[in-house]
Amino acid sequence: MARGWEEIRGSLYEIIFEADTKAGRLFDLLLLWAIVVSVTVVILDSVEGINRDYGGLLWGLEWFFTTVFTVEYLLRLVTVGRPLAYAVSFFGVVDLLSILPSYLGLVLGGTHFLAVIRILRILRVFRVLKLARYIGAAETLSLAMKNSREKIIVFLEAVITLVIIVGSVMYLVEGPENGFTSIPRSIYWTIVTITTVGYGDIAPRTLVGQALASLLMITGYAIIAVPTGIITSEVDKAREKALWNTQVCQNCLLDRHDDDALYCKRCGARL
Amino acid sequence: MARGWEEIRGSLYEIIFEADTKAGRLFDLLLLWAIVVSVTVVILDSVEGINRDYGGLLWGLEWFFTTVFTVEYLLRLVTVGRPLAYAVSFFGVVDLLSILPSYLGLVLGGTHFLAVIRILRILRVFRVLKLARYIGAAETLSLAMKNSREKIIVFLEAVITLVIIVGSVMYLVEGPENGFTSIPRSIYWTIVTITTVGYGDIAPRTLVGQALASLLMITGYAIIAVPTGIITSEVDKAREKALWNTQVCQNCLLDRHDDDALYCKRCGARL
Amino acid sequence: MARGWEEIRGSLYEIIFEADTKAGRLFDLLLLWAIVVSVTVVILDSVEGINRDYGGLLWGLEWFFTTVFTVEYLLRLVTVGRPLAYAVSFFGVVDLLSILPSYLGLVLGGTHFLAVIRILRILRVFRVLKLARYIGAAETLSLAMKNSREKIIVFLEAVITLVIIVGSVMYLVEGPENGFTSIPRSIYWTIVTITTVGYGDIAPRTLVGQALASLLMITGYAIIAVPTGIITSEVDKAREKALWNTQVCQNCLLDRHDDDALYCKRCGARL
Amino acid sequence: MARGWEEIRGSLYEIIFEADTKAGRLFDLLLLWAIVVSVTVVILDSVEGINRDYGGLLWGLEWFFTTVFTVEYLLRLVTVGRPLAYAVSFFGVVDLLSILPSYLGLVLGGTHFLAVIRILRILRVFRVLKLARYIGAAETLSLAMKNSREKIIVFLEAVITLVIIVGSVMYLVEGPENGFTSIPRSIYWTIVTITTVGYGDIAPRTLVGQALASLLMITGYAIIAVPTGIITSEVDKAREKALWNTQVCQNCLLDRHDDDALYCKRCGARL
Repeated sequence: MARGWEEIRGSLYEIIFEADTKAGRLFDLLLLWAIVVSVTVVILDSVEGINRDYGGLLWGLEWFFTTVFTVEYLLRLVTVGRPLAYAVSFFGVVDLLSILPSYLGLVLGGTHFLAVIRILRILRVFRVLKLARYIGAAETLSLAMKNSREKIIVFLEAVITLVIIVGSVMYLVEGPENGFTSIPRSIYWTIVTITTVGYGDIAPRTLVGQALASLLMITGYAIIAVPTGIITSEVDKAREKALWNTQVCQNCLLDRHDDDALYCKRCGARL
Repeated sequence: MARGWEEIRGSLYEIIFEADTKAGRLFDLLLLWAIVVSVTVVILDSVEGINRDYGGLLWGLEWFFTTVFTVEYLLRLVTVGRPLAYAVSFFGVVDLLSILPSYLGLVLGGTHFLAVIRILRILRVFRVLKLARYIGAAETLSLAMKNSREKIIVFLEAVITLVIIVGSVMYLVEGPENGFTSIPRSIYWTIVTITTVGYGDIAPRTLVGQALASLLMITGYAIIAVPTGIITSEVDKAREKALWNTQVCQNCLLDRHDDDALYCKRCGARL
Repeated sequence: MARGWEEIRGSLYEIIFEADTKAGRLFDLLLLWAIVVSVTVVILDSVEGINRDYGGLLWGLEWFFTTVFTVEYLLRLVTVGRPLAYAVSFFGVVDLLSILPSYLGLVLGGTHFLAVIRILRILRVFRVLKLARYIGAAETLSLAMKNSREKIIVFLEAVITLVIIVGSVMYLVEGPENGFTSIPRSIYWTIVTITTVGYGDIAPRTLVGQALASLLMITGYAIIAVPTGIITSEVDKAREKALWNTQVCQNCLLDRHDDDALYCKRCGARL
Repeated sequence: MARGWEEIRGSLYEIIFEADTKAGRLFDLLLLWAIVVSVTVVILDSVEGINRDYGGLLWGLEWFFTTVFTVEYLLRLVTVGRPLAYAVSFFGVVDLLSILPSYLGLVLGGTHFLAVIRILRILRVFRVLKLARYIGAAETLSLAMKNSREKIIVFLEAVITLVIIVGSVMYLVEGPENGFTSIPRSIYWTIVTITTVGYGDIAPRTLVGQALASLLMITGYAIIAVPTGIITSEVDKAREKALWNTQVCQNCLLDRHDDDALYCKRCGARL
């Protein structure tokens, strides 16, 4: 019987974690739809009119999906080789967070809306379904993001410094009587302005404040070019890497040669 | 007589579909103006003051143009070689959609305003008139768009995931009493904020909400750099393709020559 | 005496039009300040409080500068070789437009504020003072703008088409009761939204309208990347041109060789 | 004893100005935290509720940090080789400005909030701690900024000229009855619009004004691409400089080799 269980576990693992078999593929497609529908259910449940008329149905659906996802989570824990490694992995945590809010909602009102976090599970489905071109694009983008990390952090540091100083000055210039009731609120306004969002819930009313705001906006205008420049430059670089051909040097096994390379740049052997 | 009809059909086809003859060119120019004027008529008709004073005139003009476009559509169907292929092509559908709203407007009030869709017909006129430089530019742009499709889709997916989660969290943090009356409305606010549009019809009022909004804005600020980076990189690539020819130097195998190069710039050999 | 007049004319020409002599340089610096002060006077004159208290002084200053600029304009006409060519040139028209509003203001109230157009005259001063590095930068930028003209026009055409169609649909969806009182006003809202300005003076209130608006914003988000991509690519190209070295082929006189070129790419001669 | 003082001064110098010794490193880390906490104290002090409940504690903390920073400033003056050179250096001025607002606050109410300027001191700590990768990123960015200075200035000049003219025209078109009460205020609105901030505190109400505003927004949309293009191009250039070494192949004179290349990629000769 132990033998039988191992076999079942192996089959279940292939169905749940892989998409190479027909059953595995079907499972992933069903999962994809279950995620989309269950997130829609949670979102619709928050609309007053719909909640009043279809509250019971939505409540039923939510618990149906939560049960399904709970069973699935347990099966994943049981069938995987190293349960702890799975439980602390990115997708393991996401899988757990996808079911927790519904149970928490029984105790704390409202938290069940956080179940929308299960939308993150869709990312895994994409990966499992091996949508190669999209994976390639995603990898190019995350490589570009990773390579521009230091520059983006330096940039954000400069922006935060600027925002704190300008926010404090605006608090002194405009003051509580014009809506700048505290420095945190002034900093909030500064961020709203420098990112060009501009709600207008707070806006400078004094001439000096409007002049300072104008300067800030033009600065923000020029500043937005910086992260763009950084990321554009890195996307370019990441794409160029993808342009490298797949030639491997027969002599020293170096890959990643330029397209116009005739000789290996490391050992000089003819490619 | 059948012979005569075939001849007429051929001439009509050349006038309506092509712009190589004088008559064909004149037809396209007249069509261009008819489209512009008829769209202007529809737009003006929606302005209350103008509708009150000139309603009759505008109504007459709209039906004049609708009749003209209907006759033109029927002629296109009759003169073209494969009527069905035309009817389901992009411009065939646009041509039909350009006249339908006016007829529908007789039954359903208001839909006749959708006749502005005939503005899309202008695209064909440009193509027929063979404005070469603009066609080239349009092709460069659509090539860049097409090549960046996968990356843009991955990017939009990430944005949508982020927007759904942040929208739900803001609904819990701010709540209906601050204008975040449902998750769909919170998601709408999140999109308004992350795209830096910032209407201000909904704006966070709690300190936590404003702190979260600040984070979201700075994220949106960095994120807008991503599609820019993607498209810039592709426009560059598309332009480079147009710039380099495929000549390879017979002598030194250098391949990236300028279009106006007659001799290899490295070894001086004739290309 | 005719001789004397020719000499005076020549000296005046050098002072007014050139900046190579000490007097010419001084004249241009004085002119620079006169322009800045006179524009400031016009701007301050529009502020109610200042106008009430210092109206007389500002009125006096404005007419002082207008008289000075009028005399200068007449001197330019008299001293220049071909007066008509000057009068219809860009700067000739700007010089005339700089003094006209003040005179028109005597007849039509308010138009004298248009005298701010004399700020354009500053551009000439920069050119005359030969601030070489800035001229180079300005030329790089205008070259990039000129080269991207076709692509920008195609892009704007697409945006205008989109804006007209979306504006009309929003007029039907939201209707006059939600502030979308006419199609022109809806189109105005669409432009406010797609450019991410987002005043919030008009904002969708129905669920369908907000969903459409969300789509539009995300589209605008992706679309803003297109002109950026175009111009970045052209700035790059324009800068590269500036990188071309100054080698001239001894054989065929072609300039504009790449930095790494060893042989002329047109005639094959060694550089 | 003079000898002893010199030794103490040397040790203090190493602790305060350098981070190579253990004590120096500890000093800088403590300083980092003191700056962060003291800025937080100033910011919190401006929130009415917190000020009412914890005003005394915050007042005490602020003066504690001000005293610490004052003692530190004096020690820097005493231990540094050339006190005057330090006092007028960028960080010397920042160090002084970090303590002045608190003392000024005793005389002029409110100015003590300007003590947030001490956030700038963090920049020095980063430099002293030698966070190499971030320094490299910061240098790439400031090189890109410096190289694009002329182009950015030309661009801002063009924007300011445009903004002054459009602001004046809008003042005439909309007038005080629609919120455009003066030209400076109109210019403020123009900047709010062209930078796509769009508060909505002032918005055009006439049809002509909205048409002009639409034109301005689309212009601003295209214009924002210009600084982005400039900076992207310079970031690219700055990064390329960091990437290519200056090796030239002795055999075929190819000069753009990757940093890890040992053999020429074209002819296979050893570099």
